[in-house]
Amino acid sequence: MIYQDRLARARVLMQDKAVELMLLTHSTDLAYLTGITGHIWERLACLLLTKTQAFFIAPSFELGNLSAESAALLDCHGWKDGEDPFQIVKKLVGYLKVGAVGRTTPSWVLLDLMKHMPHCHWQSADGILTELRICKDQREFELLRQVQEKACNGLVKLMTHGICGMTEIEAFDLLKNYCAQEGVIVSGGIIGSGPNGALPHHHNSSRVIQTGDAVCVDFVGEEPGIGYQADTTRTFCVGGIPEGFEEVYDAVNRANQAAFEAAVPGTPCEEVDQAARKVIADAGYGQYFTHRVGHGLGLDVHEHPYMSAGNRDLIRPGYVFSIEPGIYLPGKYGVRIEDQVFITEKAPVRMTPTDGLMSHDLRICE
Amino acid sequence: MIYQDRLARARVLMQDKAVELMLLTHSTDLAYLTGITGHIWERLACLLLTKTQAFFIAPSFELGNLSAESAALLDCHGWKDGEDPFQIVKKLVGYLKVGAVGRTTPSWVLLDLMKHMPHCHWQSADGILTELRICKDQREFELLRQVQEKACNGLVKLMTHGICGMTEIEAFDLLKNYCAQEGVIVSGGIIGSGPNGALPHHHNSSRVIQTGDAVCVDFVGEEPGIGYQADTTRTFCVGGIPEGFEEVYDAVNRANQAAFEAAVPGTPCEEVDQAARKVIADAGYGQYFTHRVGHGLGLDVHEHPYMSAGNRDLIRPGYVFSIEPGIYLPGKYGVRIEDQVFITEKAPVRMTPTDGLMSHDLRICE
Repeated sequence: MIYQDRLARARVLMQDKAVELMLLTHSTDLAYLTGITGHIWERLACLLLTKTQAFFIAPSFELGNLSAESAALLDCHGWKDGEDPFQIVKKLVGYLKVGAVGRTTPSWVLLDLMKHMPHCHWQSADGILTELRICKDQREFELLRQVQEKACNGLVKLMTHGICGMTEIEAFDLLKNYCAQEGVIVSGGIIGSGPNGALPHHHNSSRVIQTGDAVCVDFVGEEPGIGYQADTTRTFCVGGIPEGFEEVYDAVNRANQAAFEAAVPGTPCEEVDQAARKVIADAGYGQYFTHRVGHGLGLDVHEHPYMSAGNRDLIRPGYVFSIEPGIYLPGKYGVRIEDQVFITEKAPVRMTPTDGLMSHDLRICE
Repeated sequence: MIYQDRLARARVLMQDKAVELMLLTHSTDLAYLTGITGHIWERLACLLLTKTQAFFIAPSFELGNLSAESAALLDCHGWKDGEDPFQIVKKLVGYLKVGAVGRTTPSWVLLDLMKHMPHCHWQSADGILTELRICKDQREFELLRQVQEKACNGLVKLMTHGICGMTEIEAFDLLKNYCAQEGVIVSGGIIGSGPNGALPHHHNSSRVIQTGDAVCVDFVGEEPGIGYQADTTRTFCVGGIPEGFEEVYDAVNRANQAAFEAAVPGTPCEEVDQAARKVIADAGYGQYFTHRVGHGLGLDVHEHPYMSAGNRDLIRPGYVFSIEPGIYLPGKYGVRIEDQVFITEKAPVRMTPTDGLMSHDLRICE
């Protein structure tokens, strides 16, 4: 029923935007609408959604993997190696004139569509999918909270164990193992120790974590088969506190709180960013806060809404997004504190645990 | 030097095809040309290659991750949250009229490019990148052979250990652990036991592997930081041999050998497919061989050249591709035997070990 409802909602939005056809290849968008998960390969597999029909075109040997629920929703058309799947697309929907493609649909698909349907005007389906996915329902909220809590349990185990003397890569492997014990598969993450913490998207290295390092740990995970993402950052010290760190940490922590307090329904998203930025600028570190304060979280790690300069959209109940201000001092260290928040009818609520070792208190681990 | 040479070769092909600008987002194409690795996120990061210039546009905070070698090749332009990176693209290359985009570049990038550069004609860069990447040099061949051998060591450990009584998911986890011991990270794979083997792209399930099952194991892995892929399939029996299995296995094995013998330089790719298909059809199982016989392998698991009906391109020295015929009997089992081959000046050579437990002999494991 859930996917039938979502397809129906998608069709309403398509009609609003005068879109006659929506094409989605494997993506979180496709998973959201149909429950179908998979990777984009070189063989075309896609949903074709029109006002009255929902086709799924895929290599014949992949159709057997569809769940009964997904298969019942869709009019499936298999194709075999050596056949041209775009001919099937053309036959089924080639008469339509306004098409929208998923944002992650690869350009080879879009360019081939343009060739096979030269009279169709193509646009991005991003607006439609964003509107569908941006407000989380109660079930989605529970799944997000669940994976977030489990992932944080893994991080607490890491902090309890200590990481002094490990390389960043070893510490990250240990974090992955602890998360796996909690049922969370970590797909990526950053352990930025000492000066490496000053690169917000650092690649974990063989640098050995030393006494007196500040370490920024940011990681992403999901429960297999569920799809909703967890994303968490904490910064802590190892063995001792580097010079000047307390002041920097305090500024980031206050910026986090200011953004949280600004995140009430009806506020423009960019004001959440501004609230954090003001605290950090007032503390004298404005130039070292080099990214937006937050991003939406759901089936994707980064999705709408973005808490970023220029985003005047108003915060709505159901939004789930990160609040993650940071200060990055080149050659010294970086500090980032990231929580996920859920917007209720009246106010934001932190989904990320903030008790025990997950609290925002400055902490020295081993 | 390696990347300078590759960029120079790319420019020659661009000129041949009258392409003035090539744009690549994070992909194996970008890694091949520049050594830059990373994921596609919602923030634009791309190479812009012209006849005389090579720009790299990325979020400012990502530029610090570039290796010195990559950074030296490129004229880097960072952008910050709240800025529009397409304005930078427009300023740098907006005057050009013929552009090519990487095949995996997401449609949101291509649609935005079309908006910002309305006078540019966009095509796929696939032809250029395929020509660049399709013939492997000696270094690439060594890296491919190395990861293939390590991955097979992991598979041999699994077959030695036995998998009877495990679920498919448990057996796959064990395979991943064995491969990790060899330094290979398994990114995906299929353990299709009993009737599940009849789905060539089966999703591993909680089905318990039983005595008398045929089990088809197909998996992909790479060494971290290297990028070249291993891809291997073996089918074996657990505890006993199902009825009629020997005949089916023998047909697949002979088809594998026939395709291997056909894979000599100068032969059209589709004839390799036909050679395997003829053996299986002659054995009476033609309708159950439902996919092409092979695909290229390199930085991608599936890449050109494809050994598929309709591909009249001639096999060239330097090609690396799979030979993986299969027979899939619904409700019973599936058999696939996959080796990787490398084409020398005169003949194909198997890269996949075929000695010991990796041989094509029908094998009963525990």
